[in-house]
Amino acid sequence: MADKAQLQEAIKTQGEVVRKLKSEKASKEQIDEEVARLLQLKAQLGGDEGKHVFVLKTAKGTRDYNPKQMAIREKVFNIIINCFKRHGAETIDSPVFELKETLTGKYGEDSKLIYDLKDQGGELLSLRYDLTVPFARYLAMNKITNIKRYHIAKVYRRDNPAMTRGRYREFYQCDFDIAGQYDAMIPDAECLKLVYEILSELDLGDFRIKVNDRRILDGMFAICGVPDEKFRTICSTVDKLDKLAWEEVKKEMVNEKGLSEEVADRIRDYVSMQGGKDLAERLLQDPKLSQSKQACAGITDMKLLFSYLELFQITDKVVFDLSLARGLDYYTGVIYEAILTQANPAPASTPAEQNGAEDAGVSVGSVAGGGRYDGLVGMFDPKGRKVPCVGVSIGIERVFSIMEQKAELSSEKVRTTETQVLVASAQKNLLEERLKLTAELWNAGIKAEVLYKKNPKLLSQLQHCEDTGIPLVAILGEQELKDGVVKLRNVASREEVDVPRAELVDEVKKRTS
Amino acid sequence: MADKAQLQEAIKTQGEVVRKLKSEKASKEQIDEEVARLLQLKAQLGGDEGKHVFVLKTAKGTRDYNPKQMAIREKVFNIIINCFKRHGAETIDSPVFELKETLTGKYGEDSKLIYDLKDQGGELLSLRYDLTVPFARYLAMNKITNIKRYHIAKVYRRDNPAMTRGRYREFYQCDFDIAGQYDAMIPDAECLKLVYEILSELDLGDFRIKVNDRRILDGMFAICGVPDEKFRTICSTVDKLDKLAWEEVKKEMVNEKGLSEEVADRIRDYVSMQGGKDLAERLLQDPKLSQSKQACAGITDMKLLFSYLELFQITDKVVFDLSLARGLDYYTGVIYEAILTQANPAPASTPAEQNGAEDAGVSVGSVAGGGRYDGLVGMFDPKGRKVPCVGVSIGIERVFSIMEQKAELSSEKVRTTETQVLVASAQKNLLEERLKLTAELWNAGIKAEVLYKKNPKLLSQLQHCEDTGIPLVAILGEQELKDGVVKLRNVASREEVDVPRAELVDEVKKRTS
Repeated sequence: MADKAQLQEAIKTQGEVVRKLKSEKASKEQIDEEVARLLQLKAQLGGDEGKHVFVLKTAKGTRDYNPKQMAIREKVFNIIINCFKRHGAETIDSPVFELKETLTGKYGEDSKLIYDLKDQGGELLSLRYDLTVPFARYLAMNKITNIKRYHIAKVYRRDNPAMTRGRYREFYQCDFDIAGQYDAMIPDAECLKLVYEILSELDLGDFRIKVNDRRILDGMFAICGVPDEKFRTICSTVDKLDKLAWEEVKKEMVNEKGLSEEVADRIRDYVSMQGGKDLAERLLQDPKLSQSKQACAGITDMKLLFSYLELFQITDKVVFDLSLARGLDYYTGVIYEAILTQANPAPASTPAEQNGAEDAGVSVGSVAGGGRYDGLVGMFDPKGRKVPCVGVSIGIERVFSIMEQKAELSSEKVRTTETQVLVASAQKNLLEERLKLTAELWNAGIKAEVLYKKNPKLLSQLQHCEDTGIPLVAILGEQELKDGVVKLRNVASREEVDVPRAELVDEVKKRTS
Repeated sequence: MADKAQLQEAIKTQGEVVRKLKSEKASKEQIDEEVARLLQLKAQLGGDEGKHVFVLKTAKGTRDYNPKQMAIREKVFNIIINCFKRHGAETIDSPVFELKETLTGKYGEDSKLIYDLKDQGGELLSLRYDLTVPFARYLAMNKITNIKRYHIAKVYRRDNPAMTRGRYREFYQCDFDIAGQYDAMIPDAECLKLVYEILSELDLGDFRIKVNDRRILDGMFAICGVPDEKFRTICSTVDKLDKLAWEEVKKEMVNEKGLSEEVADRIRDYVSMQGGKDLAERLLQDPKLSQSKQACAGITDMKLLFSYLELFQITDKVVFDLSLARGLDYYTGVIYEAILTQANPAPASTPAEQNGAEDAGVSVGSVAGGGRYDGLVGMFDPKGRKVPCVGVSIGIERVFSIMEQKAELSSEKVRTTETQVLVASAQKNLLEERLKLTAELWNAGIKAEVLYKKNPKLLSQLQHCEDTGIPLVAILGEQELKDGVVKLRNVASREEVDVPRAELVDEVKKRTS
């Protein structure tokens, strides 16, 4: 614990910070954060009696997962990992922190959201901000030129609380990427097929997958008359079309980004287009767009992509949408984003809205996103050797949130254990017999529990089963011991039947399979 | 990127730090660490052409897991989690960082090894140092008085490199704890049974589980004449008995810790005792030890514990060992530690020696450890309400290391994917047919891959199967398409057989089940 005088000084200073923010009418979130720190310092000083009082909370923007949330998380992970494995993916893991320098220059303006570690001597470190940059670092460092891998892990962003109310600062990303020099659009098509499978199996309701291509966007901006240096910023503005009406987006383009009205209107004509392979074919004939070599390359690839999606029979949910832009700088080709089209219990404003899929300006119902990034690995390679990559990130926090709310609304109870049978007794002085039988069951691979009481009441043993969803009770009594049987009770139906002890394991297995 | 002049200044300063350390003949590790930082700074400045050159490495003391290591990690996790679930445990998760204050005062001298986050405004944060303190914080914060939970996650320690050469700074802990007010020794016995099951199922060779009790140690120190304030430090010295001979331990007690020779000799008489229930019974008759109320309580519980271990039939590997001390301050009752008794491929000095089981002075082959800590949760509760806890930590990094080395030595290849079948063709222009069949297999739940090439050679397709252990190839050709069959090839035996396309899924399932 810090020295008392030091602490008192720090409390005084922090008090001034809070007063200043209040007088400046800073945002509620900013004030709250500094007040939290003030309280933390005061708590360190201790109460009147000098007793140390703890601030009992998790760090701002983080949460514990309780057993029920963990059960849901496990279920979601199982579905998704099963899909990844079905597609032949390996998995890797990387440390939670990287050299600060590894993250520098990868996230543009968002770099200010990176968590740095304190300089305690030695290397300067930061918490990972996503899984893509560590993946690129891993490929370059190990000179890997092709791999299909998934990585599920937590990432960290000191999100500006005033802007992103209620978002988590620690959250999961769930990434699948294919690295390697391959024939055009084949891995890209597999990524879309994978998203289709995952969203179908998660059973979140109907969805659409929007696809576009950075090269088409760039070509389109060029022929519409957007200056080169404004491509990225106009991209961000276009990306807002799923939340804002065209008039508002246009206003931003003209008033904030300095485009002329005519340029903006030309952009509108394109970004309002949606379709499939047919749209790609039509755009190839577009007298203006076809003048852009870049756009043509993108559109030709889009046509090829759709022909593969037809083979995969997933074109019913995939839309070629020229308004899809996505925010990240590193995309170089195909981009895509999946949205839920049905109302879901989790509203847009829940914390879990934040996920890997919405690095920037993604629509309200976004649950997956990704694209091709052929240049990122080359940034790390000393000789600039490129490793083409395409990948997808499942917005798993949003999925958790939907699943959690579904579970809340459902009458079915979420079990947090998998216990098959509770070993119980109705009589006293049978603890040793209960422990012996429990061990027999464990040794046979049965998931079993026993209450840690010498003489628990039968009622409290049955109540434990009700509370935790244990389906069976194996009841021991003097008579059962004499007869070499166990009374097996079905908790739901209350039916009881004597089972010879030697057959108990098989009977439990049969009933719980 | 930092300003150039700033960087040059930082490089100059860091150069001086390195020179100073060298002139002072500091430890190699310390110099290496500061040199690494110097190189990092220089790299930021860029090469001659000003091009930014990345330092391609993970942070000191951390490692990536490659797909092979991940496959082993997954296998180990599955075995252990299965055991936890068999015992009816739930799981929880907590954030990777806690309020700095939550960790303060829990780890004694080791607190200097805690990673702090940089003060970027708001709360002061630190990376978790173990899973036990966050667990206690979770219980107090949510007013939970009983739970049986496991938690597998990474923890962080800025280990002093000079002292703990080659250890990881980011490593897994794997904890199982039972919190709640229960009848004596029942949950404690279950923890030991669980360790027995896990170590048996991991198949690491023979092992022993040493048990002792903090109350017995304290009582023993008291009657031997150790002053109260020296209990903890003498505990640490006793704990070295599994590595050092008695004479050396005695030397430390007398010369460093200031005990008299007679006191040390009295301690020796006790700490050389090993046994089972019989030893507990004998000690209860010990004329001196039986005078200590504390020791008697511990010994009586030990006797009870062994009677439960007999019911669980695990006394063949459990030893009541009065020399077991364990380092952590928070233990209040039973303590235990599991060691491997056979030589294992992983030598004592490997990085993976470090694990949750050896928080202090644990023997070379230690793979699990734990004990009872009835006071920790109360430290967090505003009213000091106690929640008794007993738990065990599996030394999972050591287990990974042994498993990885076993895999190295074994002729059997570690598969990093679970792909059942590769869809291939020997002829050109069959990409579309390959994609179609692959999608059919995916939709039927078969794990399938297809090469991302328009016209791959059959040899390179077969080679991919050899490299990655895919057991089956589904080969398509003009003739097969005409006949409505697929040629199914067994990669190992090279046998090929035509399978009607409609039966392919069942055939693959049958052959790979």
